[in-house]
Amino acid sequence: MTESITLAGIASMVGGSVRGDEDAVVSGVATIKAAGNDELTWASAPLHRAMLADSSAGAVLINDGFGDTPMPAIVCADVDAALVDVLGAFSPKTPGPPIGIHETAIVAESATIGKNVAIGRQVIIDAGAVIGDNCVLHDGVVIGEGTTLGESCRLWFYVVVREGCSLGDRVTIHTHTVVGADGFGYVSRSGTHRKIPHLGGVVIGNDVEIGASTCIDRSKTDNTIIGDGTKIDNQVQVAHNVQIGKNCIVCAQVGIAGSTRLGDYVVVGGQAGLKDNIEIGSGVMLAACACVPSSIKPNTKAAGSPAVDYRQFLRENASIRRLPDLINRVHELTKRLNKLECAADDKPDS
Amino acid sequence: MTESITLAGIASMVGGSVRGDEDAVVSGVATIKAAGNDELTWASAPLHRAMLADSSAGAVLINDGFGDTPMPAIVCADVDAALVDVLGAFSPKTPGPPIGIHETAIVAESATIGKNVAIGRQVIIDAGAVIGDNCVLHDGVVIGEGTTLGESCRLWFYVVVREGCSLGDRVTIHTHTVVGADGFGYVSRSGTHRKIPHLGGVVIGNDVEIGASTCIDRSKTDNTIIGDGTKIDNQVQVAHNVQIGKNCIVCAQVGIAGSTRLGDYVVVGGQAGLKDNIEIGSGVMLAACACVPSSIKPNTKAAGSPAVDYRQFLRENASIRRLPDLINRVHELTKRLNKLECAADDKPDS
Amino acid sequence: MTESITLAGIASMVGGSVRGDEDAVVSGVATIKAAGNDELTWASAPLHRAMLADSSAGAVLINDGFGDTPMPAIVCADVDAALVDVLGAFSPKTPGPPIGIHETAIVAESATIGKNVAIGRQVIIDAGAVIGDNCVLHDGVVIGEGTTLGESCRLWFYVVVREGCSLGDRVTIHTHTVVGADGFGYVSRSGTHRKIPHLGGVVIGNDVEIGASTCIDRSKTDNTIIGDGTKIDNQVQVAHNVQIGKNCIVCAQVGIAGSTRLGDYVVVGGQAGLKDNIEIGSGVMLAACACVPSSIKPNTKAAGSPAVDYRQFLRENASIRRLPDLINRVHELTKRLNKLECAADDKPDS
Repeated sequence: MTESITLAGIASMVGGSVRGDEDAVVSGVATIKAAGNDELTWASAPLHRAMLADSSAGAVLINDGFGDTPMPAIVCADVDAALVDVLGAFSPKTPGPPIGIHETAIVAESATIGKNVAIGRQVIIDAGAVIGDNCVLHDGVVIGEGTTLGESCRLWFYVVVREGCSLGDRVTIHTHTVVGADGFGYVSRSGTHRKIPHLGGVVIGNDVEIGASTCIDRSKTDNTIIGDGTKIDNQVQVAHNVQIGKNCIVCAQVGIAGSTRLGDYVVVGGQAGLKDNIEIGSGVMLAACACVPSSIKPNTKAAGSPAVDYRQFLRENASIRRLPDLINRVHELTKRLNKLECAADDKPDS
Repeated sequence: MTESITLAGIASMVGGSVRGDEDAVVSGVATIKAAGNDELTWASAPLHRAMLADSSAGAVLINDGFGDTPMPAIVCADVDAALVDVLGAFSPKTPGPPIGIHETAIVAESATIGKNVAIGRQVIIDAGAVIGDNCVLHDGVVIGEGTTLGESCRLWFYVVVREGCSLGDRVTIHTHTVVGADGFGYVSRSGTHRKIPHLGGVVIGNDVEIGASTCIDRSKTDNTIIGDGTKIDNQVQVAHNVQIGKNCIVCAQVGIAGSTRLGDYVVVGGQAGLKDNIEIGSGVMLAACACVPSSIKPNTKAAGSPAVDYRQFLRENASIRRLPDLINRVHELTKRLNKLECAADDKPDS
Repeated sequence: MTESITLAGIASMVGGSVRGDEDAVVSGVATIKAAGNDELTWASAPLHRAMLADSSAGAVLINDGFGDTPMPAIVCADVDAALVDVLGAFSPKTPGPPIGIHETAIVAESATIGKNVAIGRQVIIDAGAVIGDNCVLHDGVVIGEGTTLGESCRLWFYVVVREGCSLGDRVTIHTHTVVGADGFGYVSRSGTHRKIPHLGGVVIGNDVEIGASTCIDRSKTDNTIIGDGTKIDNQVQVAHNVQIGKNCIVCAQVGIAGSTRLGDYVVVGGQAGLKDNIEIGSGVMLAACACVPSSIKPNTKAAGSPAVDYRQFLRENASIRRLPDLINRVHELTKRLNKLECAADDKPDS
């Protein structure tokens, strides 16, 4: 963690320029409301302009074109991307076990442990497992038989990766997530349910991050697959034999049922539910709370329950707002039509 | 746990009076259907009257004005509140570790442990952590670096509170909940996702209770905040930088996305989903399964997906029930209008 | 795990017959796309016919009447049921602790441990607990005071069953699930919430399977009950005093609120939410994402939010698709009616 940085230093870090005193220092980052006069904040939306007037922040990170600010500014081309660099500079070192194997960890003799691996307290690594170089296994992690981790993975407290699974390089998994629990599959005959054995595993690519308390089930045969660069939030359910492509974003509490396939660059909003055995094309965006009963074509947006095309969802939803009034109008039209029909009937020539 | 109590004793406990034999004893509490003749039950709703006729309960706790009962009764002013007292009297002692530090726990030298603290098996307390007086940490709890707990907190099995978080007094957290996992934030450029460092923590007030398998993420900067007296159920997702006010009730499986703010006395029904960066005013009630895409004014009720004002939701929902019939009616009106128009066209004078 | 089996051996196992070389062997099972020429696949749906033409599978398991296949086939009466047998034959032995008590496990002296029980690393078994014969407790399992397990139960990593609960025979519970956490109940007066003590437990029948990260809360009084043969998926919330009947299927992320009762053979689709204190009759099927606000009659299907009869849901949903157009039509009718009324007003005789 950097203790404090000059505005010139920050500008250099993000490829920007300073407007104000280059030698002024900041010692942290905070939101506009919370920042003190020794902290940097950031602003991008129009509504931030008024908020800055009331802010005590010592300096502000802005995009070129944002306009004047009441405090010194660092002007850059992409404030959101720049903020990642700045937050990184101020980040404390991530806590974790030191390199080596803690004396309370239990590592099978037949497991292979790479270089510079940090294995925490009460970690369990079973027979034939392979842990790549520079991995960090926080306290209580369980690695099942024959499971392999690539390089530089970080598994937080009590993460369980059951037997026969595989993780790529630079995979991060957060606390209490389980990879490789049995898929939920039964053959039901005469009302009773026989468990289907699940012989497959889970294969996770490189640069994947998985949140806390998420479940990624093992497959019946073949593998459940998570593609390179995909990010999955907390409390997500990924069922057996699901295939998720590369660089997808899956928000919290999403459920993806068995054997459903997602292409690349798919974004799934929070709490969305996806039926089993459907196909979500690459580039699809599913709105939060969407309930998706059928396949979705690539590069489209869907929303609603059941989910439909996003523009259609907006139109239908606006129509529902007008529905109570529509019923009244139809009632009114009926009365007027009745009256006209009566008048027509009364005419001598009809 | 009290073995048995006279009806007079119970009446005294709840500020009520006995109708029947004051010296009769009960040795437990059960529902109307399940209660045996040595157990107390309770009744408040009109439908309970008929159920009491078939009950074996030895006595019944009722509100003044409930009417006659087929068994002795304890009459009080607030049966639900009185029941809490009675259940408390019959509660067995909550199990847990004895005061002291179990030999399998690992407590950093620089941690500060208060008086009368009970630390269970395989608990981990990291450097600089502070555990207040009378806290109970059940087996497998992990307290991260520099995290502080107030007095009389109880953390159940395998609860993880990561580094740099803070809990007030009398906070209870149930099994497998994680506080302070990284927020789910990326900056996406050209389809790949760079992780945003999360430098903030989680601050939890006094008298908060959090259910099992819930996730409260740490913030990007500033803190994720849970106010005094708020109660959160199981499997709830509270994202980074969320602020929840005082005395809120958040039911199971709710998801609250990043930076959303809840006022005080908010009630969120089960499975509701709240979008990021919105504001839910104090006193708001959100119905179960509501999907909330925008801010909600104080002291209002909302329901539906997307959520609208509760009365509007009821009206629209009733309208949807009538929609198939409405379509038929419009079809009918069209035919009748066609006929009238034809008749009008046929007239010699038109 | 069987290394390889002849087609004749498989046919004998499933009561089927071989079409092709009976002595050919397969050494595994995979889907049509993934199967190699030493593996068996299976096919049942019409769309599988075309897929088989491109498959490298060494043999295929089909129902009588499926038709010709490009590779040897095993013909049977029920391919899905047969597949369970075949997968079972190829299943590796489930990993787990050896019979006995691992030296890092902590078992109370007053606990009763049956024959052939396997107790893993860091398992905790508290006073008075009873573990039936042939149970397997994976690493980190916690069994609370007085809790009893029948025979042949398997509890995966870090499963917690708190005090005073009871499991039948052959119960399987997956990683990170908690049974018996406190129910979420408060009495709210003047905006503050007093916790209701939960004196009851959880009673789970025989042959129940419960997924990962699921929560089954203990009851206020009486018991929360899961009936024989019921299967529950991952991340399900079962609140206090819920009663689930026999042979039900509860899919992932379902939430069942307090005191709700399900009959037998109920199927609950993923992410469905059930209100408290309602009754779901035996044989009911609830669609995925259903939000169920009231009781449902036996042997019916319901869907939607709020849930209605399934056929009504389909009809209403189709109607919503037509709603934007309906609004236009009503607008059109209004204009035409206005015109007719004007014409009628203009007539000399009106």
